[in-house]
Amino acid sequence: MHNTLEYIHKMILEVVDIDAIEWANYSAMFEIKEFKKKEVILNVNSICQNVYFVNSGLLRTYFTDKNGRESTFHFAQEFDLATDLESFIQQTPSKYHIQALEETQVVVWPHKMVFDGYKNLRNGEKLGRMLTEKYFILFSNKIQSLYTKTPLERYNEMNKRFPTILQRVPQHYIASYLNITSVHLSRLKNE
Amino acid sequence: MHNTLEYIHKMILEVVDIDAIEWANYSAMFEIKEFKKKEVILNVNSICQNVYFVNSGLLRTYFTDKNGRESTFHFAQEFDLATDLESFIQQTPSKYHIQALEETQVVVWPHKMVFDGYKNLRNGEKLGRMLTEKYFILFSNKIQSLYTKTPLERYNEMNKRFPTILQRVPQHYIASYLNITSVHLSRLKNE
Repeated sequence: MHNTLEYIHKMILEVVDIDAIEWANYSAMFEIKEFKKKEVILNVNSICQNVYFVNSGLLRTYFTDKNGRESTFHFAQEFDLATDLESFIQQTPSKYHIQALEETQVVVWPHKMVFDGYKNLRNGEKLGRMLTEKYFILFSNKIQSLYTKTPLERYNEMNKRFPTILQRVPQHYIASYLNITSVHLSRLKNE
Repeated sequence: MHNTLEYIHKMILEVVDIDAIEWANYSAMFEIKEFKKKEVILNVNSICQNVYFVNSGLLRTYFTDKNGRESTFHFAQEFDLATDLESFIQQTPSKYHIQALEETQVVVWPHKMVFDGYKNLRNGEKLGRMLTEKYFILFSNKIQSLYTKTPLERYNEMNKRFPTILQRVPQHYIASYLNITSVHLSRLKNE
């Protein structure tokens, strides 16, 4: 927990100036939560009220199509964040599910705290802009990778980004994250 | 042109307060440019220096993979904007191309003007955050649509979003925008 707060502090300092008192007051509002393995912490069509920073454990963000078929969109491991930013910003029904794949402890950044921070921190709006830019780039990379990378390149990128994922996650989640079939994934693993 | 500036003004007023004098001073810095049909206005690996608002004509944003195969990512018609936001924000090499598909007139919002605006307009940082949020939502929808919608649903969405696109654009651009084959597109058009 301590580490994750420090990580968040550093992430903020990278983009704006926030002094010790401001940080002490602000960071006191973060909450800690624990989720059980397989617990769904955000459901499609509910309003996403939180940004979750993973302290320990693993989260999965996924879609379901109208036939109920799941597509894994992303994982969040230690220090990563997970949210449905569109639902969070607009307070509209979520299009993703978020699920804990292991016992997971998170630092919770609630909606009110985020938006109060944008308004009241000295560099709050700039912080908001720069965090949104960072999150945008994650999506931008994901799209580029789907359009321009081969499955093998995506597989190698995944292993770099999430070095322990193959041991921690059911294979069909990984296949759908890579946008390939399970058969294709087995082949990549054996190459 | 007048219309497009008015549109930008309205878009800004929707998210922050900007008074008449501020707008007059700021908007005087927009530039107007004309591009020829087929002209490439942003090349992969160059630094994206501009946000383009289409006044008339049509732009296409596309990737190329390492075999030179093109994938159309998005179109920008009247009032839409086109940029490589990641390259623009970070001033890093672009991953997209942008090309004029018709004779196109744009309002140019140069990098310096955008970032000076964030700094110097009364609500500049908030404006920056909210425009980035808007652009993020575009990407977010694109991803959701690729993961959860059927080709027919994507085709119908495209026709709603770009009502004249089928008449204006080569069919293989449209097929790759929809992430389907040209054969599949012909079938959808005949249904």
